[in-house]
Amino acid sequence: MDMELWYTEKQTPDFGITARIGRTLHHEKTEYQRLDVIETRQFGRMLVLDGMVMTTDRDEFVYHEMLTHVGMNTHPDPRRVLVVGGGDGGAIREVLKHPSVEKAVLCEIDGRVIEVSKEYFPHIAGALEDPRVEIRVEDGIKHIEAHPGQYDVILVDSTEPVGPAVGLFQKAFYRGIHEALRPGGVMVAQTESPWFNRDLIARVYKDISDIFPITRLYTASIPTYPSGLWSFTLGSKGRDPMALEEEELKAPDTRYYRPELHRSLFHLPRFVEELTG
Amino acid sequence: MDMELWYTEKQTPDFGITARIGRTLHHEKTEYQRLDVIETRQFGRMLVLDGMVMTTDRDEFVYHEMLTHVGMNTHPDPRRVLVVGGGDGGAIREVLKHPSVEKAVLCEIDGRVIEVSKEYFPHIAGALEDPRVEIRVEDGIKHIEAHPGQYDVILVDSTEPVGPAVGLFQKAFYRGIHEALRPGGVMVAQTESPWFNRDLIARVYKDISDIFPITRLYTASIPTYPSGLWSFTLGSKGRDPMALEEEELKAPDTRYYRPELHRSLFHLPRFVEELTG
Repeated sequence: MDMELWYTEKQTPDFGITARIGRTLHHEKTEYQRLDVIETRQFGRMLVLDGMVMTTDRDEFVYHEMLTHVGMNTHPDPRRVLVVGGGDGGAIREVLKHPSVEKAVLCEIDGRVIEVSKEYFPHIAGALEDPRVEIRVEDGIKHIEAHPGQYDVILVDSTEPVGPAVGLFQKAFYRGIHEALRPGGVMVAQTESPWFNRDLIARVYKDISDIFPITRLYTASIPTYPSGLWSFTLGSKGRDPMALEEEELKAPDTRYYRPELHRSLFHLPRFVEELTG
Repeated sequence: MDMELWYTEKQTPDFGITARIGRTLHHEKTEYQRLDVIETRQFGRMLVLDGMVMTTDRDEFVYHEMLTHVGMNTHPDPRRVLVVGGGDGGAIREVLKHPSVEKAVLCEIDGRVIEVSKEYFPHIAGALEDPRVEIRVEDGIKHIEAHPGQYDVILVDSTEPVGPAVGLFQKAFYRGIHEALRPGGVMVAQTESPWFNRDLIARVYKDISDIFPITRLYTASIPTYPSGLWSFTLGSKGRDPMALEEEELKAPDTRYYRPELHRSLFHLPRFVEELTG
């Protein structure tokens, strides 16, 4: 009989996912976190940071498209875009699908995530070779502070709010983002699960509402993330993503995002809508 | 150190969920299936049939509301409603929130599911005591065949398409439902995960489209179901659920379904929309 190996992630102290695995392809302890790449049968290769799934071959398209295109389409002409975190390159790949983009800056604190992603996830990280991309291996908070009025769109592609990413869920950081955005600028942050992180979502929504004139919450289905439902919070200095006509929405080459979906995203289930309250 | 007990369900041969548990409250082998009730820390009590989660205290509202209210609101005046399967009583509870309902028939093949649900899930199964409810412990396929032109809405609240529920995913069954519906009638069936059951969803969608003039697919977030994303397929002899005005939609007391959500449900992510051919 074959030996079966399984990766189990406790997504909360009392609940988790388990995936049958083949080889562990990579393991290291970086300056900031534990980094593993494993081969799963269900979702292909899986990038795991500090024991939490960050991305997989099969479902990465959802997270990267949905973090990116809603905000990019909310801005009428996004030329300069910043991704904070996101060392796997997936958000940058989606940003570059918008022809208006002149410069896409990736600000990732852990350079090893970038290097390992280039090696094991070339279909994701390959976009980082594009000449429009500038890679900065540095603290996103410091980068934001040092670049006021520089960006049209800022995407916060962070890990969970523990360890190196704690500061990326603080009100002071959102205030810094507001300063770093040009007039009409748009931010989107990944903001965890509406099932398991309700207090965090409600707090972040309120913080962003205090700073930006327009704040919107939306969700997407990501099976390898806790509860399978993930939230994103958008802040806009200009246009309201709910008020856009379908004809205004660009339709990049995608597998999840569609213009028809964009207009529906902000009509949330009641138990999620309550968090904006 | 405390001993930790975990329930692990392989939702596919290569992927699953795991939940920390307390006591097993009930275990039996019925005439049709294995039936367990376990206490989980994350989701409260959990009803498990043949090793597959059917319902839990904390997330049952999503499945029951979303199976029920979309179809009920598509019919202008649903008076006679049939639930096939659904022995826990959750779909019936939601059906009874519509004041037009005169009779709600539950047709469940396994009477033990009903009895055990009444004992361990009174907030779900309590609705079965309502005088408008008629309980039939019999084969749903035979019941449908014996009642042509009898119902306004038929909800198929089945287990997975293995064991006793195989026939509930067949074209002949949907043809029988069409016959059992009065003019303007509406059916909704649970149709598994858009991540893990793509062939099944595409086939059921096509089968229902061959029989009903209007067919619509929609989804909902259910964390204890495979992939966390679940699909429902609606067939209508009358109104199109996408064409209803928000004012026409009843807003029963719910935690997931809202009229605003109803109008958005049919704008699917591209990888789900593809399944509708």
